[in-house]
Amino acid sequence: MKRVTFQLLENDMRSCCADSAHDKEHVYRVLSNALEIGREEGGVDWDVLIAACLLHDVGRPEQFADPTLCHAQVGSEKAYRILLERGFSEDFAEKVRHCIVTHRFRKARPPQTLEAKILFDADKLDVTGALGIARTLMYKGDTKEVLYHRNPDGSVDDGTGDTGDSFFREYKFKLEKLYDRFYTEAGSRLARERQRIAEEFYRSLLAEVSGSGMEQLSAVLEE
Amino acid sequence: MKRVTFQLLENDMRSCCADSAHDKEHVYRVLSNALEIGREEGGVDWDVLIAACLLHDVGRPEQFADPTLCHAQVGSEKAYRILLERGFSEDFAEKVRHCIVTHRFRKARPPQTLEAKILFDADKLDVTGALGIARTLMYKGDTKEVLYHRNPDGSVDDGTGDTGDSFFREYKFKLEKLYDRFYTEAGSRLARERQRIAEEFYRSLLAEVSGSGMEQLSAVLEE
Repeated sequence: MKRVTFQLLENDMRSCCADSAHDKEHVYRVLSNALEIGREEGGVDWDVLIAACLLHDVGRPEQFADPTLCHAQVGSEKAYRILLERGFSEDFAEKVRHCIVTHRFRKARPPQTLEAKILFDADKLDVTGALGIARTLMYKGDTKEVLYHRNPDGSVDDGTGDTGDSFFREYKFKLEKLYDRFYTEAGSRLARERQRIAEEFYRSLLAEVSGSGMEQLSAVLEE
Repeated sequence: MKRVTFQLLENDMRSCCADSAHDKEHVYRVLSNALEIGREEGGVDWDVLIAACLLHDVGRPEQFADPTLCHAQVGSEKAYRILLERGFSEDFAEKVRHCIVTHRFRKARPPQTLEAKILFDADKLDVTGALGIARTLMYKGDTKEVLYHRNPDGSVDDGTGDTGDSFFREYKFKLEKLYDRFYTEAGSRLARERQRIAEEFYRSLLAEVSGSGMEQLSAVLEE
């Protein structure tokens, strides 16, 4: 791909950025992850992979405006049209469309091609490690959710018993389970390298908010 | 202090909670920290300390509505009035007022009494460790700030050169510098115990967002 073509698609991407968790920096990180995985895996169609990375979230504004829409579905069609308008062949646009439509859910529509598997892994890598924690916390702040809830006995719920939205619930039900769900060897390895800091951060946070000082309260209050 | 009195002050506190970074859970954590520090330091007036912890942020709504107001100043007067209304003596209310007015800035109005020093440390502990990182990230999400900015050469700024608001800037200019600024030995020790996870999280996050994949881009693009 020529650098000028890359810059055209980069502009198309920038005009479709929706929310803070999926801003242009997310797209550049996914592209960087994909290039790193592709270099290690070998045999990659770089043009397809680059176009798919740049355009993988172009359907976000539509999903943001109407949450019943799936940004992978909408975005794959939108990317297909953008690529034809930019002079790419139908065959090329179709390969990119497959990457984008399969980048979200591994069960309903699993990625079939190497480039689709790399995009999937590159996108999921951005939810692992310290970055996954940081993006989730910023999103929770944006949507006014809380770090944790308390159990009826006053103890902090670690997320497993939490029925309301909270960071600990999101960690237990989503972030913690990501690490064995990668398609490529390089993606798996990069995810595992980031796993320790995420787990350690969660454990530290839980310990800090479960501090032992309140036991002293009963000792000093008169009933 | 009788448990029923504690519960009255607890209700006064709950009616004054302003934003997500300073919700009732922040107050309970500060109280828990203070009880833990007080147990270790010894010689504490528990009633003054408990009342000061519960009421230390009652001036937040006023500061939230008018940012030129200082919640420590406004809150100390508000707490003084609340305590007199609840039947506490002027001497007691005055001791609590001192704790609250000095809990924010160590230079302008440093805490003089043991209880004031403990409240100061207990409140600052809530900005250390994983919790300080988590609360800051949620606040950044709430105010639509970003994790980082890039330098003119495209590299990620680690926060030291950042002129705009970002998480990395907040870490470098505030969170990183907290750990040697505690008044009590127990506060210092608890802060140092939390220091490693905060530093490690920052380092991991910086490494993750500075990924090496983009070097591959120049190799595959045609100029």
